[in-house]
Amino acid sequence: MKPIVRTIQMKAAVPSLHDNTADIDRLQQALLQTLDDRRPVVIPYQIMTSVARAFRLADFKGYALLNNREHGWEVVGFSKVYPPVVAAMALDLGTTHLEATLLNLQTGETLAEGNLENTQIGYGADILSRIHHATTKRRQLKPPANDYQDPGLDELQQVIVAAINELAETLAARAGIGAADIRALSVSGNTTMAHLFLGLDPYFICREPYIPLFNRAPAINGEQLQLVIHPMAPVWVMPSVGSYFGGDLISGILASGMAHSDKTRMLIDVGTNAEVVLGNSEWLIACAGAAGPALEGGVARMGMRAGPGAIEYVSIDPKTYTLQYRTIAEVEPMGICGSGLIDLVAALYLTRMIDIRGKFRDLATEQNQKRAAFMREHLVKRDDRLCFVVTGIKNSGKSEAEVVLEQIDLDAMIRSKAAMYAILTTLINQVGLEFTDLEEIIVAGAFGRHINPQNAMTLGMLPDLPLSVYRAIGNSSLRGAEKVLLDETARLECEKIVSSITYLELNVNQEFMIRFSGARFIPHTDPSLFPSVPLFSRMEK
Amino acid sequence: MKPIVRTIQMKAAVPSLHDNTADIDRLQQALLQTLDDRRPVVIPYQIMTSVARAFRLADFKGYALLNNREHGWEVVGFSKVYPPVVAAMALDLGTTHLEATLLNLQTGETLAEGNLENTQIGYGADILSRIHHATTKRRQLKPPANDYQDPGLDELQQVIVAAINELAETLAARAGIGAADIRALSVSGNTTMAHLFLGLDPYFICREPYIPLFNRAPAINGEQLQLVIHPMAPVWVMPSVGSYFGGDLISGILASGMAHSDKTRMLIDVGTNAEVVLGNSEWLIACAGAAGPALEGGVARMGMRAGPGAIEYVSIDPKTYTLQYRTIAEVEPMGICGSGLIDLVAALYLTRMIDIRGKFRDLATEQNQKRAAFMREHLVKRDDRLCFVVTGIKNSGKSEAEVVLEQIDLDAMIRSKAAMYAILTTLINQVGLEFTDLEEIIVAGAFGRHINPQNAMTLGMLPDLPLSVYRAIGNSSLRGAEKVLLDETARLECEKIVSSITYLELNVNQEFMIRFSGARFIPHTDPSLFPSVPLFSRMEK
Repeated sequence: MKPIVRTIQMKAAVPSLHDNTADIDRLQQALLQTLDDRRPVVIPYQIMTSVARAFRLADFKGYALLNNREHGWEVVGFSKVYPPVVAAMALDLGTTHLEATLLNLQTGETLAEGNLENTQIGYGADILSRIHHATTKRRQLKPPANDYQDPGLDELQQVIVAAINELAETLAARAGIGAADIRALSVSGNTTMAHLFLGLDPYFICREPYIPLFNRAPAINGEQLQLVIHPMAPVWVMPSVGSYFGGDLISGILASGMAHSDKTRMLIDVGTNAEVVLGNSEWLIACAGAAGPALEGGVARMGMRAGPGAIEYVSIDPKTYTLQYRTIAEVEPMGICGSGLIDLVAALYLTRMIDIRGKFRDLATEQNQKRAAFMREHLVKRDDRLCFVVTGIKNSGKSEAEVVLEQIDLDAMIRSKAAMYAILTTLINQVGLEFTDLEEIIVAGAFGRHINPQNAMTLGMLPDLPLSVYRAIGNSSLRGAEKVLLDETARLECEKIVSSITYLELNVNQEFMIRFSGARFIPHTDPSLFPSVPLFSRMEK
Repeated sequence: MKPIVRTIQMKAAVPSLHDNTADIDRLQQALLQTLDDRRPVVIPYQIMTSVARAFRLADFKGYALLNNREHGWEVVGFSKVYPPVVAAMALDLGTTHLEATLLNLQTGETLAEGNLENTQIGYGADILSRIHHATTKRRQLKPPANDYQDPGLDELQQVIVAAINELAETLAARAGIGAADIRALSVSGNTTMAHLFLGLDPYFICREPYIPLFNRAPAINGEQLQLVIHPMAPVWVMPSVGSYFGGDLISGILASGMAHSDKTRMLIDVGTNAEVVLGNSEWLIACAGAAGPALEGGVARMGMRAGPGAIEYVSIDPKTYTLQYRTIAEVEPMGICGSGLIDLVAALYLTRMIDIRGKFRDLATEQNQKRAAFMREHLVKRDDRLCFVVTGIKNSGKSEAEVVLEQIDLDAMIRSKAAMYAILTTLINQVGLEFTDLEEIIVAGAFGRHINPQNAMTLGMLPDLPLSVYRAIGNSSLRGAEKVLLDETARLECEKIVSSITYLELNVNQEFMIRFSGARFIPHTDPSLFPSVPLFSRMEK
């Protein structure tokens, strides 16, 4: 293990009249000999006095704590005894949520976990409105000098730093240490979140030709960001590839291990955008598209993020027409999340309540008695619009709130699933492969953890492949952030991933538009692509 | 010229949909190609936004301003047009005085000069009392943590930073720029002053075995020291060799050029201590001793530093017994400085008013009439002590203040000159050379600028050599500080000097003590060492 903060045992000669080397020089020279890797060893100005004192108190031998920085070693502490815990925090800095792990760099073990809402939501739910908030209050200080005040950007930075500090305090308390004992932080987020976190101007991210201020973050420490972690803690921000291809996805690729193997894999990460990467240790190609909103629960009227109260699972028995559902944390249903939506729409299709266009069928022509009864109960008008009531049907007399699916939600779902399939096919076609050539399809995030791939295949959202091809890896962005803390080679691999990746721009891609149109049916205009999905026309009437 | 802040002309490709490299990465990559020296190029976090904005405003081409740091390049500015002035300040940080030069790194020209008293004097006139002030108020914050508060040290640092800021403002104003336009600072001072300037614990400097906290300062910038110069200005602190061999002397060796030539030279720098270096490009040997006080004017009752009102020159005509003197700035005499003292004591010896031990002769036995008359006028009792009145004899009725020399002052002068000569002979003997082997004796500082080497030879303070051997170089500490700003090789040479120097400890040196005793006569117990000096016994009675 070569963690980002290393503990190095060392011993220096004791000062005498015949060896009057200065304390700091003595420490530095002994470390250069011990490390013996030709990289420079610096003792940063801010902590010279405290390190020199600790070194003296320990009688010039003990354990030096070193930040492993890109250009060399940075001595940040010294102790007489071996420190059993050197804590570091990995953070997935999402647009809506923060999720973090506290690790012990000495052992690799997890000390604590936690999550928090991204309080920037108060300044805008999505990336674009936050960039707007960050950049519209800008004031030039004294022309022609190039100094500006960015109160909006400062505000967003302060808010996110405060949230991270809260998370750091919570996790540290759970692990029985102080927040200032956190010796490193890795941050994995999309490009805009990385800019907002560092307080760096995101203005050009959303303006053609969409250029971020930075992709590779400079060396920073806790002090510079006013974090409550150790002032000299290195803050590693995952590198990004471009404005719409962020460090969170680089982190995911790292966590998936796909860049390590000669077998070709596909990684699907659904957030606000669907981000997809294809490749192996030789090459990587990636693209992103707006397939996400419906799947993340962001579009449907009753849609919600996967969280307590979200209906994450739905089934309708095609024989008995019994509807079953389960909510996250098994509390009262409050809405429906992406996986629940997929289950529901697949069930509506398989029970012939929607047609291949995703439209509610006409009740009047229904001949199946059970289905007709079920439809009469669930397919109701609300505010003069036809809705499928999943739960809490008002006229049933129950007190719980209704969770409904409207035609407009179905349409959005069809668009999302079509976009997803079009993205996947455009990408695989780009490299001349077939889906069957894939070793694995890795589905990341809450989406990957909750969805039923069989139902996604039924809708024609994911390719029709054996279920064993699909693997869920949970929060890959966080897993990657953990990896870079624990392993130097993972940090180097990030660089390799960034430099080997090709980005396929879909906004200007004609093929994508054609494939998108073809995918706007369940499962597809070309049903031979989905041999395992029953055809509507052949289903029992 | 390879100054510490370089201006590099460069041009990057303009961003497009087909080249969406981030602004900072674009700048970095273009610079790496332009510089082509395999050293890393970093754009520090603090100024990423302002540099990126300037880069955009300049349409991605123009002039990058780069700090040339030990481990690589640091981009600190960008401008569309060539900056005609890139200002940097060189500072001699003396225990009693600060002297500074403002240079244009683009041309090497001097923009302004200035000096100021070291306001730390209010906290102690000498190094030891300042270390005492810095370290006695220390409070441990929360045992067993290794955190301390050093209010005394903080105070001394703030005072010196304020003085440097005042000097920076003054020099910048004289040059017609702002203090924040000063893009670099080099500081040359003794080891304790370097510690106090950086706020680093000087406690062990004056305690056996006399270990400084640091000899090589880390990379620091203006912001970290709360200086008014540019926040990203590199602050280069001259490296030192040990507690009593500071960066000021390394700077002097650099300025003298002695480490560049195969001819052997000697450098004498008289401050509070006399510091002497001997050597050439192959080897350097140095020592220091307490020869200074009398010579700097610090011991004699009427002694003063070379400054306005100090008698810097005295002569007594051996035929007419006419006393002449000159004060610095030609104002009313207020005291006598080192060069004046040397002139005066040499004149008193050559006119037989003091004997070879430096004792006032007995007026009663005087046979020369003119001399007797002169002695009766000038050799008077004050507070029951015999004094030689240089000027302003009270009974002459003039209003000016008396400047007098007492026997006690003469004794101190003899000790100082004996120490100086003993230092020089011990040092040259150490390497098996003779004074006649020396190409040059370089005398630095105010002392070197004002003294008459002939009179110093008469006293037996400096070796009896042709006057052409002696060269004054003024404030060598400041000259060296200027060099490191203008020339990268000078910075590397400092390292070479530090590593090639041998320090001869005189406090425990038996030979030095013997030579010191032998030198306590004018010119010496062995007059054959000073063939050009008239022997007292043979002088006209």
